[in-house]
Amino acid sequence: MLDGFFKSNNIAIIGVSREENKIGRVIFESLLSKFNGNIYPINPNAEEILGYRCYPSIKAIKEKIDLEVIAVPANIIIISINDCIKKKVKNIIIVSAGFKETGNSKLEKRLKELLLKHKINAIGPNCLGIFDASTGLDTLFLPVSRLKRPKRGNISFICQSGAIGSAMLDLIAGENIGISKFISYGNATVIDESDIIEYLANDKSTDVICAYIEGANNGKKFFSTLKKTAAKKPLIIIKAGITKEGHKATLSHTGSLAGSSEVYNAVFKQNKVIKADSLQEIIDYAKIFANIKKIHGNKVQIITNGGGFGIISTDSIINNNLKLACLSKKTTALLKKSLPKTVIISNPIDLTGDADNPRYKLALSSCLKDKNVDVIFLIILFQTPLVDENIVQDILSLKNKKPIVVVSAGDFFTRAIKQALEENNIPTYAFPENAASSIRKLLEYKGKK
Amino acid sequence: MLDGFFKSNNIAIIGVSREENKIGRVIFESLLSKFNGNIYPINPNAEEILGYRCYPSIKAIKEKIDLEVIAVPANIIIISINDCIKKKVKNIIIVSAGFKETGNSKLEKRLKELLLKHKINAIGPNCLGIFDASTGLDTLFLPVSRLKRPKRGNISFICQSGAIGSAMLDLIAGENIGISKFISYGNATVIDESDIIEYLANDKSTDVICAYIEGANNGKKFFSTLKKTAAKKPLIIIKAGITKEGHKATLSHTGSLAGSSEVYNAVFKQNKVIKADSLQEIIDYAKIFANIKKIHGNKVQIITNGGGFGIISTDSIINNNLKLACLSKKTTALLKKSLPKTVIISNPIDLTGDADNPRYKLALSSCLKDKNVDVIFLIILFQTPLVDENIVQDILSLKNKKPIVVVSAGDFFTRAIKQALEENNIPTYAFPENAASSIRKLLEYKGKK
Repeated sequence: MLDGFFKSNNIAIIGVSREENKIGRVIFESLLSKFNGNIYPINPNAEEILGYRCYPSIKAIKEKIDLEVIAVPANIIIISINDCIKKKVKNIIIVSAGFKETGNSKLEKRLKELLLKHKINAIGPNCLGIFDASTGLDTLFLPVSRLKRPKRGNISFICQSGAIGSAMLDLIAGENIGISKFISYGNATVIDESDIIEYLANDKSTDVICAYIEGANNGKKFFSTLKKTAAKKPLIIIKAGITKEGHKATLSHTGSLAGSSEVYNAVFKQNKVIKADSLQEIIDYAKIFANIKKIHGNKVQIITNGGGFGIISTDSIINNNLKLACLSKKTTALLKKSLPKTVIISNPIDLTGDADNPRYKLALSSCLKDKNVDVIFLIILFQTPLVDENIVQDILSLKNKKPIVVVSAGDFFTRAIKQALEENNIPTYAFPENAASSIRKLLEYKGKK
Repeated sequence: MLDGFFKSNNIAIIGVSREENKIGRVIFESLLSKFNGNIYPINPNAEEILGYRCYPSIKAIKEKIDLEVIAVPANIIIISINDCIKKKVKNIIIVSAGFKETGNSKLEKRLKELLLKHKINAIGPNCLGIFDASTGLDTLFLPVSRLKRPKRGNISFICQSGAIGSAMLDLIAGENIGISKFISYGNATVIDESDIIEYLANDKSTDVICAYIEGANNGKKFFSTLKKTAAKKPLIIIKAGITKEGHKATLSHTGSLAGSSEVYNAVFKQNKVIKADSLQEIIDYAKIFANIKKIHGNKVQIITNGGGFGIISTDSIINNNLKLACLSKKTTALLKKSLPKTVIISNPIDLTGDADNPRYKLALSSCLKDKNVDVIFLIILFQTPLVDENIVQDILSLKNKKPIVVVSAGDFFTRAIKQALEENNIPTYAFPENAASSIRKLLEYKGKK
């Protein structure tokens, strides 16, 4: 059902303005930036925009149109859809708002009937549309200066709310986390969350699915989709509107019929859906699931250059029902022999504030080889000058199949190194709590706890 | 006891190396960058460093020395202290490590006896020392390229762990939050956490005290200090080593004698100490307490340009026992008359994705005047291009005594505007949960719940 969207070659956009910052115009520019297919801007009052020939209507385009993006006002939407029907366009993204979410249920109903009658696959209305990091197919009407696009990766993200979706994409891009496909589906008039999740469950370039859901269009369909999907790949969901008041707010947003949060929680638990309680948790969990495929147990070894971080990490690990690994005698002896006396060889291993890259390398390689260790909790505080950006290569040169998560808190210098680690599929966190709860979620999902 | 440190004019540093990145050398450079007093580098093997005359020993300096920073190896510390005694230096910061935290309790004991006998005020050993954003007094041995120094502000931060302290300062500087004084006190051999908290309780340039504590040196003294201090100003504490395993790790870090976390929790609660459970919470709480002095009640009005953010904010507000404000009929009528039909006038007020600065200004000014509203929960998603950086001035022009917290998630563009808001004492958060829990803590402290 969604394949036609993502494999589109010829895309038309209705409502491309000559004025910058207008919705249709920004969509046109988003598509121009990286998409390799053909783009057809439609505007009856312009001959050309940005050097591209403009068409007065979709009927004036000779070529077959695979996907049409509609950004016209709600009151003329039916005319646009009728044009699409005549042109036999089968995939439509309706960005326009002003339907059931603003009380205009009559228009929404009329739209739905028309789309269903002509078997048109439609995303929206009241949505941002789609973004595919690998093909550059990008219908987001938010400019790159405001919303940085993430690099290519294996996480797909579906989002009922365009605002949540756009803020999350921007944050994810800032952390240098990769995205496969992004779908903002708004009112879910034809294609709903279940259709999208099912599509992503079968999508080979998606390893992890994240979803922001206000409510399911069709509860039975949704729950059966969850069951099928979560058995195939990690599915992380935040359900919004969990309080009575929050639920009320969903009605005037996407007009969702939400069930009680207890029902959702129970279904999530039953079906191995990974429940996120905040947007931060979605990001935290997504990166560990995207990067770590195997984890053998819950014995965590902390390596740090700051004692205090070691202590709060210990607290976080215990509070998340993980265990502190107990290094073998061989590892302990080797480290004691090779490292300065001030270093504390225990769990945490405290390499202390004057730790440099070689000291980290030695500790990391020994712990990676130690059979008593399942996961490395690698704290690196880059405020101390003897450890530097070359540690990224050191970590990569040693990496075996044992999971490593990096905890590192700081501003510019730190952020750049964390981006380099994320580039190389090492999940990074600012604070121990986030890293420990992510490890816990991964173990729970893998049935190792 | 600490006044002598912060009012120092003549500062000597023992152990200033000609080599860059060495500890004493970095401290020297930190002091040079902004401090206006006199700085005396001591190195018997150098005539000058960075154009400053070097002294062979502290005895060779003619002027009175107010503060000496010692960065020599632990094994020659006693010699350095004896030199200070001869020179009658009364305030010392001992940065050097290698005392009880590495099992060398004998040396620590000897050091302590010597310092007490000669009534020397000493911070450390095994610490970073102090930073004062208003005078530029900066003994941190971590270079600015790695650890950005925060601007001047009204939050003071004391930290047993240097690593936690430096990572936090770097993060705080990145968010453009202001700091008054920072003290990393390490092993607390002479001056301990209670002395520092008591000093800050009486310090006029400190409105909020944040503390990272592994354990109290003297339980009775600590608890009585908490009681006195929390009655005067907000005191936010994270207690590390709350699990059995974490507690064990404190012993090899700063050698603290920690009590059970239950005892700490009970004492915190009894004395209105604001307990933080993570480093993120310290930052979250500090900024609301630093910037918002008065709050009349728990009725929160959400204004948003993204429906989804409105919903998760509603959930967060309810989950934190806050209430949704109910706008007066007058406000509702005015907003309905003045704003486009697509805008939802309720709680949340959803200005929708095409909201611009004037729309925000109108909604904000009306809610600020409405007697039914105690707090404004202002969500601004800058991914949409019609709202821009000028909104900072709009918010400031309207601001009355009613608290405003801003929620805004995103990368570069968003971050710059949040920094401008923090510059103007508006607390900002990335996610609704953090904002709502901070409002809750403020209300609890003010006894309004």
